Amino acid sequence: MNDPVIKLAQDLIQKRSVTPEDANCQAMMNERLAKLGFNIESLFFTDTLNTWARKGDRSPHFCFAGHTDVVPTGPEKNWQHPPFSGLITEGMLHGRGAADMKGSLAAMIVATERFVTKHPDHKGSISFLITSDEEGPFINGTTRVIDTLEARGEKIDMCLVGEPSSRDVLGDVVKNGRRGSLTGFLTVKGIQGHVAYPQLALNPIHIAAPVLTQLSQTVWDTGNEFFPATSFQISNINGGTGAGNVIPGELEIQFNFRFSTEVTHQQLQQRVIDILDEYDFVYELNWIVNGQPFITEGGPLIDATVAAIKSVTGVDTALETTGGTSDGRFIAQTGAKVIELGPRNDTIHKVNECVSTDDLIALADIYEQILEQLLT
Amino acid sequence: MNDPVIKLAQDLIQKRSVTPEDANCQAMMNERLAKLGFNIESLFFTDTLNTWARKGDRSPHFCFAGHTDVVPTGPEKNWQHPPFSGLITEGMLHGRGAADMKGSLAAMIVATERFVTKHPDHKGSISFLITSDEEGPFINGTTRVIDTLEARGEKIDMCLVGEPSSRDVLGDVVKNGRRGSLTGFLTVKGIQGHVAYPQLALNPIHIAAPVLTQLSQTVWDTGNEFFPATSFQISNINGGTGAGNVIPGELEIQFNFRFSTEVTHQQLQQRVIDILDEYDFVYELNWIVNGQPFITEGGPLIDATVAAIKSVTGVDTALETTGGTSDGRFIAQTGAKVIELGPRNDTIHKVNECVSTDDLIALADIYEQILEQLLT
Repeated sequence: MNDPVIKLAQDLIQKRSVTPEDANCQAMMNERLAKLGFNIESLFFTDTLNTWARKGDRSPHFCFAGHTDVVPTGPEKNWQHPPFSGLITEGMLHGRGAADMKGSLAAMIVATERFVTKHPDHKGSISFLITSDEEGPFINGTTRVIDTLEARGEKIDMCLVGEPSSRDVLGDVVKNGRRGSLTGFLTVKGIQGHVAYPQLALNPIHIAAPVLTQLSQTVWDTGNEFFPATSFQISNINGGTGAGNVIPGELEIQFNFRFSTEVTHQQLQQRVIDILDEYDFVYELNWIVNGQPFITEGGPLIDATVAAIKSVTGVDTALETTGGTSDGRFIAQTGAKVIELGPRNDTIHKVNECVSTDDLIALADIYEQILEQLLT
Repeated sequence: MNDPVIKLAQDLIQKRSVTPEDANCQAMMNERLAKLGFNIESLFFTDTLNTWARKGDRSPHFCFAGHTDVVPTGPEKNWQHPPFSGLITEGMLHGRGAADMKGSLAAMIVATERFVTKHPDHKGSISFLITSDEEGPFINGTTRVIDTLEARGEKIDMCLVGEPSSRDVLGDVVKNGRRGSLTGFLTVKGIQGHVAYPQLALNPIHIAAPVLTQLSQTVWDTGNEFFPATSFQISNINGGTGAGNVIPGELEIQFNFRFSTEVTHQQLQQRVIDILDEYDFVYELNWIVNGQPFITEGGPLIDATVAAIKSVTGVDTALETTGGTSDGRFIAQTGAKVIELGPRNDTIHKVNECVSTDDLIALADIYEQILEQLLT
């Protein structure tokens, strides 16, 4: 296959860039961007290589964001084709990262090359924010690059993240926001004892049962135009010594909120505490804020994206905010308008990840048309 | 110390008879019983040595029951004195099994020797039912001996189990019954999924919370003259993959009833099922009946025991049914009157287990007086 998008996607897939390894993917992309006149900054934080590449300094400032790292393959023998081969069969490009998201990176690069070649004096400026930490702990990747840009007052106006957003056909879904994620760690304190002497013990499982009932039945909000209702889920619960005749001294519970813009993480934390304090018991409660919600309600970025998808594929796009978190949350915090658009996500993180070569070629066309509409 | 009770207790403690090992304890006891005219049967089942020794075949048939096995010591370096030394310091006999229950075995043997020597033509008959499986799985010990006796129509009328029943001073508590024990294993079935897509999953922890609330708040009975109220305790609960973003597919719960004679294990099982079935969910439920409750409400055995304790120690005895299970439950099932009387239990199963030598000497006197009152 001679298409430059597919060729570059194959080259990227063949590099074993399991988080936080970049394996020279960014160097390969940077070489091409440098030829177009991009200024390249390699930002290495602790164990993570990131690239900030920008062409021009005018407004509007449009940014392509993405990641070169991939999740582990699991046992490679379970794959129909070697996961770092980039093999093409029956119109599908195979390999870890094919859909998430080396295919999108290749489409971004080729779309930019075509656009800049056609419009050397385009409006505004174009940048690439690329990390090798998106699938990892989110510590030394996009968030650190954003901190660096903020510190020097460099602002992104519009950002397209190449995450695989499409459900059934290319372009059917664009993410124009994401819910927030808040994790709580609750330890219910009891008093250990023998089940034959319950009056000398205090069973933390019995204490917790009505509390968890109330938490799991609470309506936290009803969502809004852009977000489904905030959801609460207990993911882990563990109590007991293993012995059948011992009342445990503690019960450990982990829960997670996916929350809309109708509520803040501070409000959710306070409401949980208010519910716990309706009951008379001793507990410890700790929190991790995994991500803030963001929403891009409308404007030129969305208009250009919807139009480009329609023009290239004929598909009417749905704007959605469902699903997990992405690095878009760090970029949106700066005030940038952020959307996510990439290929179908039905094989991501799975064995035999693959992407349609036709879709990748069309994706480059869509990306190029978005640049056309925003920067000419 | 020259007292024969203490000497025999020391000899027994010095044998490392950790369950199911007997380590020749029974042989040592049997040799002395044989000299008194007892007929000795050694009953070995799978891994467990048991003794059935009986002198005479008349009624009333009085049985001493006990066990030669002991629980493990844990690291011996944590003991102040070596756990199989039988050392005496400051009036205390030290070692694993000193209180539970080699001291009682020694008191039974010496009491029987004195009684039979004084009353060679006593009424009724005396037996010893000794196992080396009491601290273990309860499979090849007392229950198998009882099966053997039942099969040949041999009945015990009255039984004294030497379990350490005393709380603060020797003889202050006699157990005249035990609660039943019933264990349930409940698996709540959900559908595993990602916390970001709760509509595609079914959280078994959320399902279980109100069910466990109801179970833990149910009054099963209010007990009776002999038993405290039936108690329900959840001992173990485990659900979750460990990951914070996964809704687990199953939740495992283990619970235990200690139940009075006001309710049967079948009634408890049905009431649990009735509660579960008030909720619309899929579950698996399995049961183990650990033991049936029994009660010895009054009669010659209790009268003789209370009088003997008062005579030897001056203590007014309380009859109680609290605490764990014992082998008494297997014997009581045959219709025998069963009580438990032994030394103080404050050090049993712990590091530095010990027993007062004065108490053991007095215990032999009490046992002897019980024989006097019942069999002369």
